[in-house]
Amino acid sequence: MAKAPVLTPQADDFPRWYQDVISKAELAENGPVRGTMVIRPYGYGLWERMQAELDARIKASGARNAYFPLFIPQSYMTKEAEHVEGFAPELAVVTHGGGKQLEEPAVVRPTSEMIINASFARWVQSYRDLPLLINQWANVVRWEMRPRVFLRTTEFLWQEGHTAHATYEEARDYAAHIHREVYADFMLNVLAIDVVPGVKSPSERFAGAINTRTLEGMMTDGKALQMGTSHELGQNFARAFDTRFLSREGSRDLVWQTSWGASTRMVGGLIMSHGDDNGLRVPPRLAAVQAVVLAIKDDPEVLETVRRIGAALTDAGVRVEVDDRTDTPFGRRAVDWELKGVPARIEVGPRDVAAGTAMLVRRIPGGKEPVAIDALPSLLPGLLEEDQALLLRQSRERREARTSDVRTVEEAAEAAKAGGWARLPWSEVGAEGEKRLAQDAVTVRCLTTEDGSVPEDAEAPGTVAVVGRSY
Amino acid sequence: MAKAPVLTPQADDFPRWYQDVISKAELAENGPVRGTMVIRPYGYGLWERMQAELDARIKASGARNAYFPLFIPQSYMTKEAEHVEGFAPELAVVTHGGGKQLEEPAVVRPTSEMIINASFARWVQSYRDLPLLINQWANVVRWEMRPRVFLRTTEFLWQEGHTAHATYEEARDYAAHIHREVYADFMLNVLAIDVVPGVKSPSERFAGAINTRTLEGMMTDGKALQMGTSHELGQNFARAFDTRFLSREGSRDLVWQTSWGASTRMVGGLIMSHGDDNGLRVPPRLAAVQAVVLAIKDDPEVLETVRRIGAALTDAGVRVEVDDRTDTPFGRRAVDWELKGVPARIEVGPRDVAAGTAMLVRRIPGGKEPVAIDALPSLLPGLLEEDQALLLRQSRERREARTSDVRTVEEAAEAAKAGGWARLPWSEVGAEGEKRLAQDAVTVRCLTTEDGSVPEDAEAPGTVAVVGRSY
Repeated sequence: MAKAPVLTPQADDFPRWYQDVISKAELAENGPVRGTMVIRPYGYGLWERMQAELDARIKASGARNAYFPLFIPQSYMTKEAEHVEGFAPELAVVTHGGGKQLEEPAVVRPTSEMIINASFARWVQSYRDLPLLINQWANVVRWEMRPRVFLRTTEFLWQEGHTAHATYEEARDYAAHIHREVYADFMLNVLAIDVVPGVKSPSERFAGAINTRTLEGMMTDGKALQMGTSHELGQNFARAFDTRFLSREGSRDLVWQTSWGASTRMVGGLIMSHGDDNGLRVPPRLAAVQAVVLAIKDDPEVLETVRRIGAALTDAGVRVEVDDRTDTPFGRRAVDWELKGVPARIEVGPRDVAAGTAMLVRRIPGGKEPVAIDALPSLLPGLLEEDQALLLRQSRERREARTSDVRTVEEAAEAAKAGGWARLPWSEVGAEGEKRLAQDAVTVRCLTTEDGSVPEDAEAPGTVAVVGRSY
Repeated sequence: MAKAPVLTPQADDFPRWYQDVISKAELAENGPVRGTMVIRPYGYGLWERMQAELDARIKASGARNAYFPLFIPQSYMTKEAEHVEGFAPELAVVTHGGGKQLEEPAVVRPTSEMIINASFARWVQSYRDLPLLINQWANVVRWEMRPRVFLRTTEFLWQEGHTAHATYEEARDYAAHIHREVYADFMLNVLAIDVVPGVKSPSERFAGAINTRTLEGMMTDGKALQMGTSHELGQNFARAFDTRFLSREGSRDLVWQTSWGASTRMVGGLIMSHGDDNGLRVPPRLAAVQAVVLAIKDDPEVLETVRRIGAALTDAGVRVEVDDRTDTPFGRRAVDWELKGVPARIEVGPRDVAAGTAMLVRRIPGGKEPVAIDALPSLLPGLLEEDQALLLRQSRERREARTSDVRTVEEAAEAAKAGGWARLPWSEVGAEGEKRLAQDAVTVRCLTTEDGSVPEDAEAPGTVAVVGRSY
């Protein structure tokens, strides 16, 4: 009789599979206040590595980290009309502090444009202060009616960049730079997700932005996940806060701004891009643990060998963990590491020690074979790079196979309902077409071009709409 | 006529000097909601380096990072009697979310014992799950009536560790390990603050703890700052949440717990420990910028030289910044770097280039002298280590010079009012003595022993009370 699967198979019930992985791989769990989540150490480890990779790219782009308050005076939120309209329904409000009712309630930040700009208006005096390039790592709160761990949570973690520039062109180019060199580079080369870069249609833009760049990933079920966005804010917030600078010519001009963010939602994207019926598959460049060396039995030679392999792999630059918890059955530990998606499992028992070999189990392509222990340090780094490339290739092939070129909005809706994406000229869609698609819970994920490059904005000629269902 | 000083001199008005440094060195500013702060990039850079150094020590101690929700159901806060009594007056309460009044208000975490233990009660099943060693980096909120940037703010950033153990002894030893190997090691060897390790008197313990270890630093004005604490929680929270484990013997026992935290308050401690009338002095091991290479004039050879020096110092392992912003007057930039406390300033003008020398200005011992440019990479790392040692020595000498051994509570109160610390047998003080000291706003900072070692707790025989005024 076949054993019951640890996870609900993806084909049976994808949302249930997703919840199962999150629970069984010990990634996260629901918090007691509706919509909040506890990120468990293994899940947080994925986020920490995402932070490190993104932070290095953000710093290389010239931005510096800072920290702005969690609480925003309620009155600030109303300063920019579109922004408040977009966020008002999602706000959490603090009405009492220190045992007293507050004179003015404070909003828990849903994003920080409204508090960062209060500082920017003071910090920016002259053209010498520009560009002002700031990033912050923070928690934000948006009250969620239908929460889903990592994908839509009332509180989530993210980075939000906020910049001010002297000209429209400079702001636009910086938003494009972040989109390409920070987000796309990270998602393709570290997360191994074949994201599609594009701009949002006007109706899908960030509240208060004049243009929003996005990266859309296709999940295993054919739905889209917005993985990171980069906004041109024009002078909307500068006007609201009167953020002006003395130009070289002596005039007092409003600054041009950008903001851009990526969040713990990417952890959800990682799970749904690479996971299979046995659990997670973590791309080696992201993995905090790239290889685990397992002692099968509590045997002195076995324990000595796993530690020696661990040390040799560390020396070879592999991020390795030695699992010598032999008071837990080996089979249970092996399933656990498989669930957690560690790319390489190196299993060592007494017979392996005698033969000078270990069993190498590769999570990403699958399969196991005995390997000479001495060969592991020279072999493994190359295999991990192969695994990294394979994940990206699989992500690309899935997206290509499940994206169809269509001619009409009706055909696009059908393709999306069937579990894929459709591409058609944006001129065929427009605001009217978006309304039609919405009836089937389908949206324009982004606007791109025939050759896959990113159009300047939604008005650029020859743009192509990528259409699908989304998380 | 002498120029007006950039900062209020310490001797004139120490609190004003502190505010001046924070503003002029661009460390932080007040946020719009009372008691909140904006941490500016230079101030946040100090915090980032503190995080990196502490995080490495925390991980080396076996703890793993995780993340727990910002919002705690109000009912949770009442589960542990002493804890709720301690924190109730400081809570911020969210009553509305998503446009509706909440059925149960949510408290913004003032610390996370109450939410972490809800998870621990699920995660801990058997002795195999112990010890459970968790840390989180987060913001917390405690409503402040008399806020002061970095020292007492309504919202602050910190790390909080939370652990569960099978025995009292194991929990006690882990709390002591964190106190010694994480906090004391970091504060002495990175922050260069000669902190005094000890335990808190019963009245000064964390709300809900059975023992609190602390590290107290003496600031330039002779007042004390509590720099980090490590608590034994006994089984108080385990009882509140019924956190039990199946022991090896088959019984279901309550776990023993610890919690420990250090916060952005350390930035305040850094400023007040090492700052002088010219600004900050940042210990080289902490400094994100250990050396700045300044171009005095916009001259091609000068610019080429500062970049070359920058590259050579980077190769020598020095964290360096090249300041070639020659459109800002040199004098203003020099004052700015001095305010920011960068340990080494290397100034290069056309005459220096011709002579093959640069002016080396050392912030920590003070003084300037010309140095051969080619000698800088071999010279500077050693000088920075000298600076690091000098700061710690100055901190120690100040503490020793301003600590007096006294015999009575009255003498202790006098010494503290005169701007120093007093040491006397704890048996002379006790709860009654603490009440007497409180009349002069003086407190027992910690209990230590004659030889400076840390007593087990307040009841240990032969303990010595260290008494002073504090922030």
